[in-house]
Parts: sequence; C-alpha cells; structure tokens
Amino acid sequence: MAEEEAVKLFGTWRSPFSRRVEIALKLKGVDFKYYEEDLTNKSHLLLKYNPVHKKIPVLVHNEKPIVESLVILEYIDETWKEGFPILPKDPCQRSHARFWARFLDEKCLPAIEEACLRSVDREKAVEEACELLKLLENELKDNKFFGGETIGLVDIVASVISCWLKAFQQVAGVELLTKEKLPKLCEWSDEFVSHAVIKGCLPPSDKLLASLRAHFETVASKELCT
Amino acid sequence: MAEEEAVKLFGTWRSPFSRRVEIALKLKGVDFKYYEEDLTNKSHLLLKYNPVHKKIPVLVHNEKPIVESLVILEYIDETWKEGFPILPKDPCQRSHARFWARFLDEKCLPAIEEACLRSVDREKAVEEACELLKLLENELKDNKFFGGETIGLVDIVASVISCWLKAFQQVAGVELLTKEKLPKLCEWSDEFVSHAVIKGCLPPSDKLLASLRAHFETVASKELCT
Repeated sequence: MAEEEAVKLFGTWRSPFSRRVEIALKLKGVDFKYYEEDLTNKSHLLLKYNPVHKKIPVLVHNEKPIVESLVILEYIDETWKEGFPILPKDPCQRSHARFWARFLDEKCLPAIEEACLRSVDREKAVEEACELLKLLENELKDNKFFGGETIGLVDIVASVISCWLKAFQQVAGVELLTKEKLPKLCEWSDEFVSHAVIKGCLPPSDKLLASLRAHFETVASKELCT
Repeated sequence: MAEEEAVKLFGTWRSPFSRRVEIALKLKGVDFKYYEEDLTNKSHLLLKYNPVHKKIPVLVHNEKPIVESLVILEYIDETWKEGFPILPKDPCQRSHARFWARFLDEKCLPAIEEACLRSVDREKAVEEACELLKLLENELKDNKFFGGETIGLVDIVASVISCWLKAFQQVAGVELLTKEKLPKLCEWSDEFVSHAVIKGCLPPSDKLLASLRAHFETVASKELCT
C-alpha cells in the first residue's frame, strides 16, 4: 500500500483542529489522502472511524483510526520519529509543551469564544481572554517560536491564534490580538503564517472570513429568536 | 540530593487527581515527599510552582514543577523509563490509552457530577452518565485491566470510578456503577482496588464519605439560598 493510501485524514477546510494535523503531517513529510467532511451530513467512514465522538479530525493509519487532535499530534511524532520533531526530547520540556497545548484548548479557546460571541458584558470577557493570551505570550520569552528556533507542538496548536483569531475578531468587532496588547504574540503570528509549510496549510482568509460571517449571523439570529 | 527530596508531590488526600500521581510514583517505585495542601489556604509553594492554575496536583522534580495530572503521568513514565510501564510502547496503543484517559476526564467526570448534583431532571443525567460509562466498559473487552493484564494509564485515571464514584453515588443517592448496569466495570473496580499498590493509595472510604457528605450539604445549602 502506498503511503498516501495508508494515511488518511478526515477534516474540514475551516477547522483549526484538522489543519493542525495537516501541518504536522506536512512538517514530517508524510503523504496522505485528505477527505473533506460535510459536518451537516457526516460520511459513514467518519462515523465508522470515530464512533464515540463522531467528530473530525480523524487520522487513519493502516486502517487504524486515531482521534482527537492533540492525541493525533503525539501519534504522528511517535510514528514518524525520524522526521521533523514536534515535541522536544527532554521529558520536562515535553511536559511544558503538553501543558501549553492543553492551556490553549481548555482555557484560551473557550475564553476567545466568549469574548467574540457573548452579547452581555463583552468588555469583561475580552479582558479575560487577553489575560490568558498574555500568559501564553510570556511563554514565548525571546524565542521566535514556542518550540524555540523551530516550530513545535505549541506552535501547531496555537495556529488557531493566527488566521482564525484574526478573522474571528474582525467578524465579531472585538480587539484581542493587537500590537498594543500582545506585541510578541503578533510577531509570532506573522512569523508563523509566513513559514513555507504553514502558509500552505492555512485556509484562504477571505473564504474563512465569509464562512465565519455566515456562522455569526446564524448564532445572532438564534439569539434573537430565543 | 536524596530521591525523596528531589521528588515532591503537592496534593490533597481526597483528590482523585493527586492520588493518580501517587499511584504512578508508587507503581514506578519512586520515593517522594508528599505535601498535603489546604485548598482554602494555598501554600506559597503551590502558588509558586503552579502560578497559572494554582491547583493541585503539582509534581516537583529537581525543583522543576510539572502540573496537570495527565501531563504528570506522561512525565513520570518518560522520566523513570525502566520502571513499571504506564503507557504501552506501540504508538497506536498509546494513542488509544490517551484517548480513553481524556474521555474519562472530559466526558465521564462532568457527566457523573451532573448525575449526582443536578436537582432537576436527574434521571436523564444518570442515564447519560451510564451511557458514557458503558462506552468505557466496552473498552475493557475481556481484559482484567484497561492496560491488559497489568494496570496502565487508563486504569490509573479511572481510579476515580472506583472508590470516589462509589462514595459519590452513596451520598447523592443515585445508582450509576451497579452490577446490573455495568458488570464488567464493577469487576474491574473490585480487581483494581484489591491491587497491592493501589489499595495503599486510596483514601479511607469512611473518611471520604464523611468529607463528601459535608461537601454535598454545602452545595445543597448554597442552592437553597440562591
């Protein structure tokens, strides 16, 4: 079986979670076949490979499914060991990378969503999200990337802070990631999206913007109806 | 520096999260110094070692803090490689173990809390929690432990299903883990709590019961006052 057939990725073009997996596979130089899912009409393959959560992303390697983006990223690093390193070697540094990856998913993302979608007391939600992003920013120290001189796990997970957050705040009309508030994180974002591999893995910003605008209108109209 | 001084664990006796770390260290045969935290008056050391979340458990190894129980368990396995294996070697099996560990924390625990604490529509919450626990049970297949013949990551994380859930449902007056509903999970629980290392790491059931009863009374009186 050719590598491309042996490795399949089920995702959606606008999901930062499936894009993470795409980034990791491309950094590793692993060929794969991509399956775009319609989340309003999930394929039988997606339901077969992820019967518990029925969600993307799913990585299928030699017919074995791996689910949950953070779990998939660790799997990719452990399976294609010789390629580009996603996690550092040192156990202590590995645990720090895992900590910040979880911090992004469990703290920053819900806070960003609150800041962009909440209709009451939004100012406070924006402030809270900025405080969390500041903690993340401090973790950059004087490094180019969270991984140091090269991209690592935290950078891949933080990709959502780059083009997605920018589009999100533009549509919601809030200011989170600005040069005044988070200068280093802005610099990181510019550096990250310019990386040769990364720029090929990010969704086109105009298409993403249009898609998010439609999503926001749906949410807003639902709020008006309740 | 003696090993015991080099390895410190900050936890509370009744927390299943710090008990997880204790189990892993004891399975590995690592000596450590334990610091019992008073969560109503957190020590300066806890705040110093975990400034972001200010939570237990914290493992400190050679003065370097590692936080978040799942991150700590991976750290322990990677640092004391030669000891008892917590995660399997095969990348695919490792990803399955990570998946079920996250499933326990992110799906089962919130559902159990809902089932035990919710005052309205509790029956539905009990049913939903049981459905999730059934998915977990199926993962046991015909094995003694989630790790196969020996205890592994998922067993350590699932320790909360053993004595904690039993005490929780007794105090809340709900039935989740019963031989009728979840026979294999009950068998697993009996096997798990009888393990030589595990039984020394679990809180005394009468003390846990009394502590949970007091906690439930506080929650109930708060509900009455709001």
